Amino acid sequence: MKKIESLSNNEIKETAKLAQKKFRNALGLFLIEGYKPIFEAFGEGVEIKSVYTTEENLEKFDFLKEKITIVTEPILEKISTTESVPEAVAVGFQRKYDINCLKDKKRLALLENIKDAGNLGTILRSAAAFGFEGVVLAGDTIDIYNPKVVRSAVGGLFKLPVVKVKSVKEAKFDGFSCIASVVNVKNAKNPEEIDYSVPFVLMLGSEADGLTQEAVEMADILTTIPISEKTESLNLSCAASILFYISKRS
Amino acid sequence: MKKIESLSNNEIKETAKLAQKKFRNALGLFLIEGYKPIFEAFGEGVEIKSVYTTEENLEKFDFLKEKITIVTEPILEKISTTESVPEAVAVGFQRKYDINCLKDKKRLALLENIKDAGNLGTILRSAAAFGFEGVVLAGDTIDIYNPKVVRSAVGGLFKLPVVKVKSVKEAKFDGFSCIASVVNVKNAKNPEEIDYSVPFVLMLGSEADGLTQEAVEMADILTTIPISEKTESLNLSCAASILFYISKRS
Repeated sequence: MKKIESLSNNEIKETAKLAQKKFRNALGLFLIEGYKPIFEAFGEGVEIKSVYTTEENLEKFDFLKEKITIVTEPILEKISTTESVPEAVAVGFQRKYDINCLKDKKRLALLENIKDAGNLGTILRSAAAFGFEGVVLAGDTIDIYNPKVVRSAVGGLFKLPVVKVKSVKEAKFDGFSCIASVVNVKNAKNPEEIDYSVPFVLMLGSEADGLTQEAVEMADILTTIPISEKTESLNLSCAASILFYISKRS
Repeated sequence: MKKIESLSNNEIKETAKLAQKKFRNALGLFLIEGYKPIFEAFGEGVEIKSVYTTEENLEKFDFLKEKITIVTEPILEKISTTESVPEAVAVGFQRKYDINCLKDKKRLALLENIKDAGNLGTILRSAAAFGFEGVVLAGDTIDIYNPKVVRSAVGGLFKLPVVKVKSVKEAKFDGFSCIASVVNVKNAKNPEEIDYSVPFVLMLGSEADGLTQEAVEMADILTTIPISEKTESLNLSCAASILFYISKRS
């Protein structure tokens, strides 16, 4: 089994660079940190390039035996992005999906201009939990392979195709009902009154600005979750989760 | 109007210390950062001790005119905890509530051992949005006056009484139905089938461990949100928000 003990080893330096988007994208790779995320990724068929772990945690990663490189704790610290050092860091191959792979699906979410890694990861987690079959990221959205997105998605990222498009219009499929989640719009429909038995795309915008005008105009239905008049809005990932839940239950 | 220009001014040093829990608790004060949170706190009757802002933002804070101290941008940076410097930082007086103030309420949430500031703030925001009348924090929970909790609560913190207790038992009121949110428990009730017309306490545990055995044993009803078999759980604040939503809608 391969062993690396030097912090200045080239492979280690290259791996540490995957914390940065430009290197992730140039190489088509990403970091998976910790036992559970690595196990989930493996279980969902993510192709793993290598796993770095210490001698003492070796046994846990038996399912990826051929990919293991034994490293020291300081090396793990160097290649990880979390506050506490994980048991292992794996490098996985990014998956690329074409927008056309979503055309035959029935339950899609579209997220526009989402900048917060925690929010995006959490939304992917909830989308997977409520049977969504694909997620479209439109506009200026944070990289899904950002380590914080990978962590907060808790496997959600590996469970459904995530497709990037430049503008929301690319996700306007024939026969799909476009439902836009809006805030403070008079006459927006109660989400309980929407028909989710037809194919639909549920669209959500950024926490700060909501959906763009372009997205709202594309929508067939505007919806809003009824909340107390004394409060202004919900956190984005909470609002998304409630809408996902309602659409599933119906 | 008072003006402070020196970073080593004593009042500024004392204010900067409020980023730390021990100083907040010793003085019964806390930081409120940015225009909107300060406006919300004021609107909800939080007693404001002082507001620090720059000359150019002075007009915005006319509603707190008598409390204003004009400071420089570097001072604002010193007394704030956010990445980008806010327009103003206010110091507010913490509110202390006694557990007995909740006895006549009908919709309460109990959070046990919540450690994540973002989660706690987001849950308070959702609780306010769905008409909860009080929140009990049990066990080893993060300080609600932590600046990150204050920020992510987006005013939710000021809209309802939040009471700290040592153990969940202190929140066992006569005539209240105790509903425990659990994961992976056979025969746990679907949250849609619960009667929320009687006074109830909805209990949620930490993201890592869920509710303690003590809390689960105290419960009259165990509930779990049905999710896809392929996923393990939801993010805590998303699960809380869905349960709050269901209890309100019923």
